[in-house]
Amino acid sequence: MTKEALQKEIQKKRSYLCVGLDTDINKIPAHLLKTDDPIFEFNRQIIDATADLCVAYKPNIAFYEALGTKGWESLQKTLEYIPDDLFTIADAKRGDIGNTSRLYARAFFQELDFDSITVAPYMGRDSVLPFLDFPGKWVILLALTSNPGSRDFQQLPINGEGRSLYEQVLEISQQWAGHDQLMYVVGATQADHLANIRKIVPDHFLLVPGVGAQGGDLEAVSRFGMNKNCGLLVNSTRGIIYSGSGLDFAEKARTSASEIRNQMSDYLEKFL
Amino acid sequence: MTKEALQKEIQKKRSYLCVGLDTDINKIPAHLLKTDDPIFEFNRQIIDATADLCVAYKPNIAFYEALGTKGWESLQKTLEYIPDDLFTIADAKRGDIGNTSRLYARAFFQELDFDSITVAPYMGRDSVLPFLDFPGKWVILLALTSNPGSRDFQQLPINGEGRSLYEQVLEISQQWAGHDQLMYVVGATQADHLANIRKIVPDHFLLVPGVGAQGGDLEAVSRFGMNKNCGLLVNSTRGIIYSGSGLDFAEKARTSASEIRNQMSDYLEKFL
Repeated sequence: MTKEALQKEIQKKRSYLCVGLDTDINKIPAHLLKTDDPIFEFNRQIIDATADLCVAYKPNIAFYEALGTKGWESLQKTLEYIPDDLFTIADAKRGDIGNTSRLYARAFFQELDFDSITVAPYMGRDSVLPFLDFPGKWVILLALTSNPGSRDFQQLPINGEGRSLYEQVLEISQQWAGHDQLMYVVGATQADHLANIRKIVPDHFLLVPGVGAQGGDLEAVSRFGMNKNCGLLVNSTRGIIYSGSGLDFAEKARTSASEIRNQMSDYLEKFL
Repeated sequence: MTKEALQKEIQKKRSYLCVGLDTDINKIPAHLLKTDDPIFEFNRQIIDATADLCVAYKPNIAFYEALGTKGWESLQKTLEYIPDDLFTIADAKRGDIGNTSRLYARAFFQELDFDSITVAPYMGRDSVLPFLDFPGKWVILLALTSNPGSRDFQQLPINGEGRSLYEQVLEISQQWAGHDQLMYVVGATQADHLANIRKIVPDHFLLVPGVGAQGGDLEAVSRFGMNKNCGLLVNSTRGIIYSGSGLDFAEKARTSASEIRNQMSDYLEKFL
């Protein structure tokens, strides 16, 4: 999906919501466990209930990998089910030497046809470039994550650069690709860093997880993170997909997604 | 596997060789393609031919993931086939927020029963701890990798610490677990850093990839990297598993592994 197509979708839906599909067999409604593929069945109903309210879906690959071969099948079916006008993110946080990254790229971009994949920057340029070889596909590079451990290394000050490691990641990685192929992960709990991040990457999309269960504040993220084209994908997972645990779980998910989407519609009015 | 058991195995075999199982359907001998599961059949023969010469096997997860559900089946069968006295490494380079890392840990330590997994440090403490919750299982943390991109971030100097990012990773992570549960990845191409690394982590095992195809020098790695218990697992992949491409590929792999093992036996004599 192109940047223009994604921006158009945001404008059309008045939403920059990404729904996380961290589908956990131990958390989904009991009545689904009788179906052939409960994980896919859960995802299918969530997608049916939310596809007009969000612009992206982000399956967390760990949840599928933990189920072995059966999990991969559910993931594949989910990917095929998501309508083409929605942006898909493989939240995989991969990153390895070149020939290995190339294989991960093939797995997620060709086998599964994701639009994008999250990538960890620690191994540097040649670990990221293989993901950028696929036209129309995106790398979403970890910059400043939402968890407490982001302080251990990401926020360390780099000598003589007057900036921290995550800022250096933002600076250096811009040499690898443009904002039509590269996005960054910035946790919603890091709203106080967002204005600064926007100075370094004014035009890039930011994928912002951590709203809701992790404590991030949607208004602050929108105020400080939005650029002139919105430039945000804000993810919510537990606050949407586990809103209900009965037969009406999908309906409840829709209600939760709808609330967030309505706030987003206001913020697009207010901050854009 | 305990540290003592691994050390004993090294002494018994006079070898600290790890064989990488980056099994590529496009590179394995053509006659195997007629079998039901060519990837597993290749691994099985490689394991039969080398298990008495090495102490560890390291499947590179990308190679299996790229094949989807079929790849996971081959990986599972390979894991079950590796004899129990050999150390197994999931080269996966995972690392995510806590609940996600926990799922990866479950996938690789419980579903697949690996002894260890490689983990990327960028997300910090709480992304690594979930892997350390499994008694008898190991985390192998990326410190200084073998690829050119290791210069982009790993070698950046950290302000006021008088050390670089990878040294900070070595320092800080020692607060998370002891050398009976934590190892580090140090690329063989970084031999000039090894003496320094040994000052920071004198007792930890180092997993050293990059000997052979990537240009690392086994003698230098052994000279500067060995501690009083050896403390090294040196990985070779392409130089062993792709030594031949005919019916006798496993025999040729054995010859290559044997040469490396004989050098290792000498270095254990010389440097220990």
